[in-house]
Amino acid sequence: MRTKEIKKSFKKTQSEIIKKLINLDTSCKIHDVIWKHKQGGGGKSCEIIGKKYIEKAAVNFSSITGQHLPVSALEKTGMKGLKSFNATGVSVIVHPWNPKIPCSHMNIRFFEASIGSKNVWWFGGGFDLTPYFIGKKDILFWKNAAKALCDRYNKSFYKEYSNTCNNYFYLPHRKEPRGIGGIFYDQLNRLDYTQCKDFSLECAEIFIDSYSTLFNKKKLLKFTKKERAFQLYRRGRYVEFNLLYDRGTLFGLQSGGRSESILMSMPPIVSWNKDYDFKHYENKLLKMFELARK
Amino acid sequence: MRTKEIKKSFKKTQSEIIKKLINLDTSCKIHDVIWKHKQGGGGKSCEIIGKKYIEKAAVNFSSITGQHLPVSALEKTGMKGLKSFNATGVSVIVHPWNPKIPCSHMNIRFFEASIGSKNVWWFGGGFDLTPYFIGKKDILFWKNAAKALCDRYNKSFYKEYSNTCNNYFYLPHRKEPRGIGGIFYDQLNRLDYTQCKDFSLECAEIFIDSYSTLFNKKKLLKFTKKERAFQLYRRGRYVEFNLLYDRGTLFGLQSGGRSESILMSMPPIVSWNKDYDFKHYENKLLKMFELARK
Repeated sequence: MRTKEIKKSFKKTQSEIIKKLINLDTSCKIHDVIWKHKQGGGGKSCEIIGKKYIEKAAVNFSSITGQHLPVSALEKTGMKGLKSFNATGVSVIVHPWNPKIPCSHMNIRFFEASIGSKNVWWFGGGFDLTPYFIGKKDILFWKNAAKALCDRYNKSFYKEYSNTCNNYFYLPHRKEPRGIGGIFYDQLNRLDYTQCKDFSLECAEIFIDSYSTLFNKKKLLKFTKKERAFQLYRRGRYVEFNLLYDRGTLFGLQSGGRSESILMSMPPIVSWNKDYDFKHYENKLLKMFELARK
Repeated sequence: MRTKEIKKSFKKTQSEIIKKLINLDTSCKIHDVIWKHKQGGGGKSCEIIGKKYIEKAAVNFSSITGQHLPVSALEKTGMKGLKSFNATGVSVIVHPWNPKIPCSHMNIRFFEASIGSKNVWWFGGGFDLTPYFIGKKDILFWKNAAKALCDRYNKSFYKEYSNTCNNYFYLPHRKEPRGIGGIFYDQLNRLDYTQCKDFSLECAEIFIDSYSTLFNKKKLLKFTKKERAFQLYRRGRYVEFNLLYDRGTLFGLQSGGRSESILMSMPPIVSWNKDYDFKHYENKLLKMFELARK
């Protein structure tokens, strides 16, 4: 089983991301919870609360072992006769105080299963950016970092994975993308194992480094009460996406996962009120979202 | 078609509830939106924002006409060959400022369809109470009002509808009820049409009158910052229920309904942060929820 090695690497990824987040905001306090899953395995959830820049971040590691997967998860894979599986992953979400700093999300995951005497595995992952205020330059910077990563592995990856990301992070009931995108991939095993692993580990690295760059560039920018209110209002879309569509969230909750860890991605404070007229901000933002999809 | 008469009655119900809510908080401002559904029909959404007691309330009327219903909605009814339908309803939600005042929800709905030359109809509806702080007396008051209403129509209604309410307003991922319950009924046509209609109209009346009584009893109670924070935190559960489980919300969004109206039930401001240690409040509240189910 490759899971053992992956667990070690992913745990290292988790602690490196935590370190880098704390560098962004030295006021941060960390709250760790180690938990076990009723089916087997467990994880370490890490909540980061800062006073200056990071309002709330969550960096979670989990490694779940089980005998049965919900039919829905197996449908596409033709994995009848599955004997046992392990799903290991790291997920990250950052909700900053300053509305000029975007919110961002990343996850990487490894799936391994035995079917009879056969062993199957794949990687999945990706990252996306959900800004409240953003310009073309920053969009380009974010997209280029993702493209450079992909291109080092396979010239066709970026187009495919950035499309998957755009299609996945979309709110049909609002007819709105969740943000400016990034990359999103699943069931990756078409490169050899080591390359797939390296791609996923680099995915985490590129994410935290690009995000840190944007974060530091923005963190001292001044903001108004109205801009902060707009951030809280737009966070409502984030909640809507996570509870209505996010596969990880829904799968986690339906399969009896630890709800406190799964819902750690929820924003610290959210508003569905329009305390101000946000039309101007919203039109501008949605234009940028559209531009980012081209 | 009986829909015409029901539309008139339900519109009256909507405006009476609005009047009574404004009586509870004279600082309220009303924002009306009249909208059309792309398939046919439309509605009037009414958002109420107060400065003193009602942080946000929504009283929505809608009457949708269509040719097709999602398969899921027809499954239980054996309504193959459905030609056209109308669904008319009123829904109410109140989010008060003061955490000592419970949040509450009510809806009544009428469904009518032609299948070949046959006409089918039924009523549905109910109300429930989601307090943050509550005692036995108030629970008893709320339940008794619901029971008295039911008993006037059929002695078996209360037990059945209060069970349905308990089962429906439950968050499996939290292993928690949404609140102290009330009544919830669907596909009611076992009494004659007039009685079913009267029961539904009275359901709306009993709701607003009982709720107003509790509201007035509580509205001058003092509260601390910590109590208010607990309210915002518990509102997170409300959002989780509405987006993960509420059939009305999910059906509305999936069928291309007006998302601004459907999501008007979202609390004005919500927190997933535990800024304080809420254990004491939460244990007490969950005990009351349990007591209310007995």
